[in-house]
Amino acid sequence: MSESYESDARTFYRDAVVIDSLNVSNWESPAVFESLHTGGITAFNATAATLEGFTQTLDNIAAWLHRIRRYEETLMQVTRVEDILEAKRKGKVGVILGFQNATPIENDLDRLALFHALGVRVIQLTYNERNLLGNGCFERRDEGLSNFGVDAVAEMNRLGILIDLSHVGERTTIEAIETSERPVAITHANAKSYFDTERNKTDEALTRCAEKGGVIGATSITTFLRKGPESTLADFVDAIDDLVARVGIDQVGVGNDFTQDQPDAFWKYILSQQGTKYPGKFVVDPAIDYRKVQLYPPGLETPADMPNLAAALLERGYSTDDAAKILGGNWLRLFGEVWAA
Amino acid sequence: MSESYESDARTFYRDAVVIDSLNVSNWESPAVFESLHTGGITAFNATAATLEGFTQTLDNIAAWLHRIRRYEETLMQVTRVEDILEAKRKGKVGVILGFQNATPIENDLDRLALFHALGVRVIQLTYNERNLLGNGCFERRDEGLSNFGVDAVAEMNRLGILIDLSHVGERTTIEAIETSERPVAITHANAKSYFDTERNKTDEALTRCAEKGGVIGATSITTFLRKGPESTLADFVDAIDDLVARVGIDQVGVGNDFTQDQPDAFWKYILSQQGTKYPGKFVVDPAIDYRKVQLYPPGLETPADMPNLAAALLERGYSTDDAAKILGGNWLRLFGEVWAA
Repeated sequence: MSESYESDARTFYRDAVVIDSLNVSNWESPAVFESLHTGGITAFNATAATLEGFTQTLDNIAAWLHRIRRYEETLMQVTRVEDILEAKRKGKVGVILGFQNATPIENDLDRLALFHALGVRVIQLTYNERNLLGNGCFERRDEGLSNFGVDAVAEMNRLGILIDLSHVGERTTIEAIETSERPVAITHANAKSYFDTERNKTDEALTRCAEKGGVIGATSITTFLRKGPESTLADFVDAIDDLVARVGIDQVGVGNDFTQDQPDAFWKYILSQQGTKYPGKFVVDPAIDYRKVQLYPPGLETPADMPNLAAALLERGYSTDDAAKILGGNWLRLFGEVWAA
Repeated sequence: MSESYESDARTFYRDAVVIDSLNVSNWESPAVFESLHTGGITAFNATAATLEGFTQTLDNIAAWLHRIRRYEETLMQVTRVEDILEAKRKGKVGVILGFQNATPIENDLDRLALFHALGVRVIQLTYNERNLLGNGCFERRDEGLSNFGVDAVAEMNRLGILIDLSHVGERTTIEAIETSERPVAITHANAKSYFDTERNKTDEALTRCAEKGGVIGATSITTFLRKGPESTLADFVDAIDDLVARVGIDQVGVGNDFTQDQPDAFWKYILSQQGTKYPGKFVVDPAIDYRKVQLYPPGLETPADMPNLAAALLERGYSTDDAAKILGGNWLRLFGEVWAA
């Protein structure tokens, strides 16, 4: 890369709205927020609940409100597109509160409005396994949305909460896309036909999501990339290329799924079978020691490295307009369409 | 009926162990306990949770412990077959704590052992709709047990909690029977091929339950009987005859599903779609006003009327041995097999 090229990339990145559609880092670690700020992240989907129920999730959000105040020099909560643009202008990092599961509402649909009032703007319908709405991608079967799931989709549509289908089972994914009156998202997954793993999405799911106006966040986690833990930044750009080829430049974003500074307990929690406390009962293959493998490509290991991705996209030949769409422009458009009342 | 016949029936009933495998009355009404005692009920499956979660159910059980103490002259908690025999000897009514749903454990399998320690001995896997274990009979689809459901069945087997499949969806019912290592129950339902309603069970479910050594509690609720609200006590005995013809005399009991003194709020709560608080959203046809129809046959309207059922069985030609099996003997045998550690 020539010096002027690098300089151009820096200028491009400085002006771009950069949105990471999934980050599930250790929010108790100050380094996480330094990294987000250093990396010039305009906004990110911050996981506030994964397996938690109602009360614990409210406490998680209370902790988030406290955290945003504590880091107010660099963080701000964002609930509208205007807020994200304000974060960009002020050089702050916008926090989009999101859930990776519908468990926080338990069996009460009214709680969607409560969480919306608290600023939650993205909810994944299921996480790996079954919940009251539908099934996750590691569930033994998937019969699609339940009665409650159909009503939950309608209520999320009404409120303007973005429906996320990343960890969702195939039939529940397809039915959610069919049922939703607004575009939906796959915030962090690649194409299953590009690299076959339960967590990547079928062509049908990707195509239908895109046709509905949705966006797919390519994920840099190496276990979802072709070369596994050996994957490089270029391999991740390959996965982005693949998604762009499948669904078009206007429907692809980036959802790194960063897990910065997460301890062993985190992996045990999110990979264990929901609710089943038997030792060693994992819904996801526990043979992968996520603390030991290279989980992100070298050069894209934390949000601080995101300028490297911008440079790699330009180097791959994307125009600045197209790279800007991938880095955040497409998410910004989708948020504008879905969050508006 | 001759006077001596009536006298024989009274003597027979006085000596019989009488078990009602489902009662979901208003536990705040003292008349409910008068009726159970007057009716000479030896033990009954007392619903302690239907749609409730963990904390509310613990409070419900706390209230039950208080209630059993308050009515200690006539009530006692039973958790073993020996306790039921003791209740019979002492002329007391044995309270078997039971759930009509697995929602009280929420997503934590360890809570089964907690509830078992509190004396819960019967748990219905699902109530009408979806939960984390499987689907109910009014759910839009039923793909059977989830990962969590398979583990929950194993844990209930280990602990000795009787699995109840009355309100459970067809495939979840069949899979639970296949998966369980102990006999299971259908505490309150009739044969769907006798009277076709969502809540009655298919021949396959009844046959498999019986082949596994399980017991089916015929239910006297008129909406599950052939003549609906016009049904008589003889019509209920017809439904018992039908079950006996299908699965044999050793696999049939009585689960009246009494709802004594329940207010309108109860019906609204248990018939409304789980968690969906939209006005008028019912999973069960709300056109049936359960407060206005004749919900039980005349002569079998509360537990106090159970001697009439005993007389009707003898009048129908059942031997005292067979009538004793139907009135409680079959449940007693099943409890002994399942509750034993």
